[in-house]
Amino acid sequence: MYPDSIRNLIESFKYLPGIGEKTAERLAFSVLDFDDEQVEFFKESIGEVKNKIHKCAICNSLTENEICYICSDKMRENGVLCVVEDPKSVFLFEKLDVFHGKYHVLNGLISPLDGVNPEDIGLDTLIDRITNEKFSEVIFAFKPSIEGETTSLYIKKILEDMNITITRLASGVPMGADMEYLDRLTLERALSDRKEVS
Amino acid sequence: MYPDSIRNLIESFKYLPGIGEKTAERLAFSVLDFDDEQVEFFKESIGEVKNKIHKCAICNSLTENEICYICSDKMRENGVLCVVEDPKSVFLFEKLDVFHGKYHVLNGLISPLDGVNPEDIGLDTLIDRITNEKFSEVIFAFKPSIEGETTSLYIKKILEDMNITITRLASGVPMGADMEYLDRLTLERALSDRKEVS
Repeated sequence: MYPDSIRNLIESFKYLPGIGEKTAERLAFSVLDFDDEQVEFFKESIGEVKNKIHKCAICNSLTENEICYICSDKMRENGVLCVVEDPKSVFLFEKLDVFHGKYHVLNGLISPLDGVNPEDIGLDTLIDRITNEKFSEVIFAFKPSIEGETTSLYIKKILEDMNITITRLASGVPMGADMEYLDRLTLERALSDRKEVS
Repeated sequence: MYPDSIRNLIESFKYLPGIGEKTAERLAFSVLDFDDEQVEFFKESIGEVKNKIHKCAICNSLTENEICYICSDKMRENGVLCVVEDPKSVFLFEKLDVFHGKYHVLNGLISPLDGVNPEDIGLDTLIDRITNEKFSEVIFAFKPSIEGETTSLYIKKILEDMNITITRLASGVPMGADMEYLDRLTLERALSDRKEVS
């Protein structure tokens, strides 16, 4: 029904997460209004990102160079390592600009139900790195979830004898949240993590 | 903060309607998981759609040929012309498969507030076509809105002396809708368009 080229573009957009037929149709039609420069830029961007981006040889985050700009940065605090579940977390944390140490990116979280076992998430390079570099603290910054907990506990067990402080992000009520939307698990964690008012 | 190629892809996705920074970031990261074939197909689709698609010389809908497949179809009913506000409506109607006449696509609806005047929406080719082809009925299938009404009335006035039945789609409560979400305008129209139960 659609001309082939529109049909193909709709199918392309459907590769993207959360984009179904309807949205893909809307997006494909909008491309018809792009000017030639935008079309070229879009095409190139899609190709380049796959060609140029690879994993940092040290922290496993994404970079166009061998070593990412954070690992190459001599001014970063060296004592604290923040372990995250994917590269997106690194970029988010950098944007929020509150952590100034180093990162290490896992390939996801341990999730036996999804067939993701400890050997799948790149723990060996994390452990190697912690053994070789001298971190005084390792922070787990995983999504608060069963998978996050499992992964934290698993790594903590391995690091146990290494004389390193092991912490995780606090869980609780997000700033500015309406209390009426609070769920049971978050409240439970916010209570058990409660702090003295000072 | 992001490597250039990721940044560029994020900017590309932000060309698309309804895609802001956050969603563009999510989509850009998802492209990293595409296989090479998907990347190539996506790149090509974006370029092709601009190169190959143009307006049908008869009905102003989108096609890769000079004349679209509906205008070329000898089996379509010739007596009824459905006038729509954009090519998307044609593809939608064809998908829903309840209208089997011909279409004519305007370049939008008359909207003086947005600076869109009668001479901007391609009425001359519509009038030419209605004058030359022998339609017994013209159906206005515009969005129920001030702009839709204005455009309908404007065209009706031009066609007045031509001895053609001029109709518009019924407005009213959509099938399956929950009555609690009914708005005032729709109810008003559903009442004034009410039909005898038969």
